[in-house]
Amino acid sequence: MFDFTATYTDQYQLAMAQVYFENGHKNHHSVFDYFFRKLPFEGGYAIFSGLEDLLEIIENLKFDDKDIAYLEKTGFSQEFLHYLKEFRFQGTVFAVKEGDIVFPTRPVLQIEANIIEAQIIETVLLNLLNFQTLIATKASRMRLVAGDSHLLDFGLRRAQGPGGYYATRAAITGGFDGTSNVVAARNFDIPVSGTMAHSFVQSYDNELDAFRSFAKGRPENCVLLVDTYNTLKSGIPNAIKVAREMEERGQKLLAIRLDSGDLAYFAKESRKLLDEAGLEYVKIAASNQLDEYVIKSLLEQQAPIDIFGVGTNLVTGNPDSALDGVYKLAQSNGKPRIKLSESLSKVTLPHKKQVFRIKTGEGKCVGADVIGLRSESRIEEMFHTFEPYKSMKLQDFEQEPLLHKVMEKGKSLLQKQSLKDIANFSLSRLAELPIEYKRFNNPHIYKVGISGVLKEERDKLIKEYKQLS
Amino acid sequence: MFDFTATYTDQYQLAMAQVYFENGHKNHHSVFDYFFRKLPFEGGYAIFSGLEDLLEIIENLKFDDKDIAYLEKTGFSQEFLHYLKEFRFQGTVFAVKEGDIVFPTRPVLQIEANIIEAQIIETVLLNLLNFQTLIATKASRMRLVAGDSHLLDFGLRRAQGPGGYYATRAAITGGFDGTSNVVAARNFDIPVSGTMAHSFVQSYDNELDAFRSFAKGRPENCVLLVDTYNTLKSGIPNAIKVAREMEERGQKLLAIRLDSGDLAYFAKESRKLLDEAGLEYVKIAASNQLDEYVIKSLLEQQAPIDIFGVGTNLVTGNPDSALDGVYKLAQSNGKPRIKLSESLSKVTLPHKKQVFRIKTGEGKCVGADVIGLRSESRIEEMFHTFEPYKSMKLQDFEQEPLLHKVMEKGKSLLQKQSLKDIANFSLSRLAELPIEYKRFNNPHIYKVGISGVLKEERDKLIKEYKQLS
Repeated sequence: MFDFTATYTDQYQLAMAQVYFENGHKNHHSVFDYFFRKLPFEGGYAIFSGLEDLLEIIENLKFDDKDIAYLEKTGFSQEFLHYLKEFRFQGTVFAVKEGDIVFPTRPVLQIEANIIEAQIIETVLLNLLNFQTLIATKASRMRLVAGDSHLLDFGLRRAQGPGGYYATRAAITGGFDGTSNVVAARNFDIPVSGTMAHSFVQSYDNELDAFRSFAKGRPENCVLLVDTYNTLKSGIPNAIKVAREMEERGQKLLAIRLDSGDLAYFAKESRKLLDEAGLEYVKIAASNQLDEYVIKSLLEQQAPIDIFGVGTNLVTGNPDSALDGVYKLAQSNGKPRIKLSESLSKVTLPHKKQVFRIKTGEGKCVGADVIGLRSESRIEEMFHTFEPYKSMKLQDFEQEPLLHKVMEKGKSLLQKQSLKDIANFSLSRLAELPIEYKRFNNPHIYKVGISGVLKEERDKLIKEYKQLS
Repeated sequence: MFDFTATYTDQYQLAMAQVYFENGHKNHHSVFDYFFRKLPFEGGYAIFSGLEDLLEIIENLKFDDKDIAYLEKTGFSQEFLHYLKEFRFQGTVFAVKEGDIVFPTRPVLQIEANIIEAQIIETVLLNLLNFQTLIATKASRMRLVAGDSHLLDFGLRRAQGPGGYYATRAAITGGFDGTSNVVAARNFDIPVSGTMAHSFVQSYDNELDAFRSFAKGRPENCVLLVDTYNTLKSGIPNAIKVAREMEERGQKLLAIRLDSGDLAYFAKESRKLLDEAGLEYVKIAASNQLDEYVIKSLLEQQAPIDIFGVGTNLVTGNPDSALDGVYKLAQSNGKPRIKLSESLSKVTLPHKKQVFRIKTGEGKCVGADVIGLRSESRIEEMFHTFEPYKSMKLQDFEQEPLLHKVMEKGKSLLQKQSLKDIANFSLSRLAELPIEYKRFNNPHIYKVGISGVLKEERDKLIKEYKQLS
């Protein structure tokens, strides 16, 4: 496999770094923004995830001997390789809290470091944050519609290779309750869950023997898969027999699992048979190509499903396979920088910045963020093209700064927190968000404005750059 | 991060394993098939990838001390943990050659091992093969339409976390020429490629200084990114200046890169300006949301693009995020096994099997594979519902067995080959495939039949199982 060494990056970072090094720019201080341009799933919000992993990785990032030997072979100079041997990320990072709600175009992270350090970490930063934010957002959408049902990640087999490891972590930050992924459960302290496969039932001469054997061997949290042969004619009747045998031993069958067919129909019919047998306590688990839309539909049909096991669509974020996060230069060697574009909304914003979320005194989001300079402690004047924000009186509202210092001189300042803490924080933030931003179809757009000072700085730079080119 | 230890699996594998262990089934010999049900991208074929990685991982798979301590904490018995400490995969594997063309429903791999070993490796097998096969297939589709153009993987930043590592490997097996992913290039010996980002241009006071500085520092394979400010008014003119300065130093500018706007238009206009300046040798590279359809369209418009850099859509397989590969029990403790389903095409096939590709004497594929028993060296009678295959005279054709023994008693039998070798093999196989299976829209369906002997065995089991249930 591979380690997260500093070669977990794009070659152009190293090509640029060598040029900076040879031109004496290596100590040029730079400021980069991480942000994305488009919400995934045609949704109204995203959940930021992956920060703790990122900081841990960049805190320990270095070029190991194998890296240096490889880079030497590909033609990098001895002086530069000597510099890389000593490379450590020594920068400062400001970020939104993990689990917070984020929206397009405003900085989610801001990185301050010398230009070489800032470039070398770009790829791993985008790679981890784009993906975990995508998956946490997908998980959050299922959490929103699943009510009190239990949500389990079953996705490792369909994940994009080892991406499945972080998919599981992100699913928990977005509100899932547990996973089947053992290595992720082990490393991230996640409740782990697992039952049986069709192959288990098939490997016995008949279904009843298989169920009996499993219930004897794993009486705790025993879940029987009932659809290998015929769900209602053999699976459920055999599960009922075994549940009664367990009762005689003072044990309780936890659940039966459905993995094919019309889940609403089979859940209702199974519930009926179980209840008629006096097994009201036996839960129903369902899996097979679930996503937020299917879960919503099943519950709207009052399918009596207590546990949803979600695979592919959770861990790959299907149908959106990537968040389009980018990393843009905002300041270089003390000078503000922008990238021009034909569309004004794609012109990047210069300087060290802060993002303020506008809220009522009761802590409710009012539907707009303002981007200002970090030196502004409060925004007095906001520029926005949409009413009512165009004429919004900011003095009537609270302004919550979203970016916090999370790393200083290469050392993480994060307090260790559990994934459950992050998930709970995320749920509390979603509670502040009006429901029109949470619906699946054409959600309301959360607006963004910029402060008067920042607008003036941006417009000045646009003018200068257009004269230059 | 994590290692590929044996806990890179689903919890239910371990739950089932403990039951098998305690019931004395641990030495039950089992045979599992790996196959998929649906081709990705609505395409006509898939390219099998990931075999070498898989065999290397399962050859070395074990439960380390951290795993055992974790499993003890989650309640597994001491006797079983003692068994897991000694766990090694000792099975035998038959597989299609890496890079070969594969189709739905027929076995791509067949695993023979004791039931516990076979279950524990299921998850990592599906995880790696599903993903690499998806990406190799995506890459192959771009290779088919890109003609002589150079194809580069630029996807790590948008990959699904560390999935990007294997995405790069799979892209090369599917026909890509190089990558920007340094760690993958290092470990898999792939040509590595990298130029500059917009931030490089922005970090200088003007574009010309940035280009000059880069060309001096990296004169070999120098590629200048020309769209930071204004492609035709500043980017190309500045690149031309620098190319001439390089000529004076006896150097040659390799290429310019376009990363935004209408790539067909900007490529044509840029080519004109470069040619007028006598720089016919300077190539044009393009990137920005490319996929097989965009590349095809650009070349149909005769856009003079020599190098395509592909990111998101390559490394995530967008719009298909997963291959639906499954792992089904075909034989257990000497007995053939099937899984029933309402649809006959979803009933699994029992026994140790072989897949035969039917070919003409000239080595051309005729559009059908036959699945038979492994003990059949040649199929005499094929059952198929479609004409002309229904009445096909098999004696008139060659039959190439596709499954080869690649692992015996846990030891890989694979000859080490380069990714380029795999890619070349893949291209040679595609050359045997008629063009109607390679088109993007409604490709012809490659048929599958089963041998008379296998059909008889399957039908007998269906009857037995239906009586049981």
